[in-house]
Amino acid sequence: MNERELRRLSREESLRLLSDVAMGRVVFTMHALPAIQPVNHVIDGGDIIIRTHLGAAITMAVDGHDAVVAYEADAIDPDDHLGWSVIIVGMARLIHDEGDITRYRRLLRPWVSGTTDHLIRIRPELVTGSRLVIFSRAVGPKDP
Amino acid sequence: MNERELRRLSREESLRLLSDVAMGRVVFTMHALPAIQPVNHVIDGGDIIIRTHLGAAITMAVDGHDAVVAYEADAIDPDDHLGWSVIIVGMARLIHDEGDITRYRRLLRPWVSGTTDHLIRIRPELVTGSRLVIFSRAVGPKDP
Repeated sequence: MNERELRRLSREESLRLLSDVAMGRVVFTMHALPAIQPVNHVIDGGDIIIRTHLGAAITMAVDGHDAVVAYEADAIDPDDHLGWSVIIVGMARLIHDEGDITRYRRLLRPWVSGTTDHLIRIRPELVTGSRLVIFSRAVGPKDP
Repeated sequence: MNERELRRLSREESLRLLSDVAMGRVVFTMHALPAIQPVNHVIDGGDIIIRTHLGAAITMAVDGHDAVVAYEADAIDPDDHLGWSVIIVGMARLIHDEGDITRYRRLLRPWVSGTTDHLIRIRPELVTGSRLVIFSRAVGPKDP
């Protein structure tokens, strides 16, 4: 008998999966409404680095604190839904260091020509990874 | 010369693209933090119907009002980033009508065996669709 089960992934496994893909979605609040934007990313020293024209909106702290965002990436089969997803919650900050900016701009190409964009560093606080798998449950000879 | 340009899609085109795919991500607030969950969906009468074990958390109104959520789906090439994304902001409500529940449960299969889940209707208020394209800019003989 086949069952579908959601298995939790460790923080290390989750960050490794994230570094294996180039794209995810940053989740933030804009004009007091939930907002989401697909972006590409690199992982550097355990932080998620993204490049987006929404940099100012994403990192705008309402009350002087750092902005809290979520970041999600997944590889899920659209038909059987098997695969993994990783969801991170953490602080987002604009990157100001010139050396970092030069380095990350080389790694992250802009999606659109001729737009102004920013680099953002997301430091993971909560990391939730899960993988949906199918497994065969052993059925004994006396089971129905 | 090839330029990359983000083209805005109409509301109708955006909802059509959404109905062509089976999966998206619902964005909401949980414990005062930004939250996101991959789910599958059907479009019915212009509304987005999703099925998730996070039903109570997603539709929990903090102050007696309906919960405002975002919903995102995309088909973006991980290498060249060409493709489309649709982002919707709207009100989310638990579905209580027994007929609707029976119908939507047939259309939306649970991802995990043996979990309790809810059906949610998201009524789109804001619909933002965009498509990233490459186009060749005509270069005249006198242009550099």
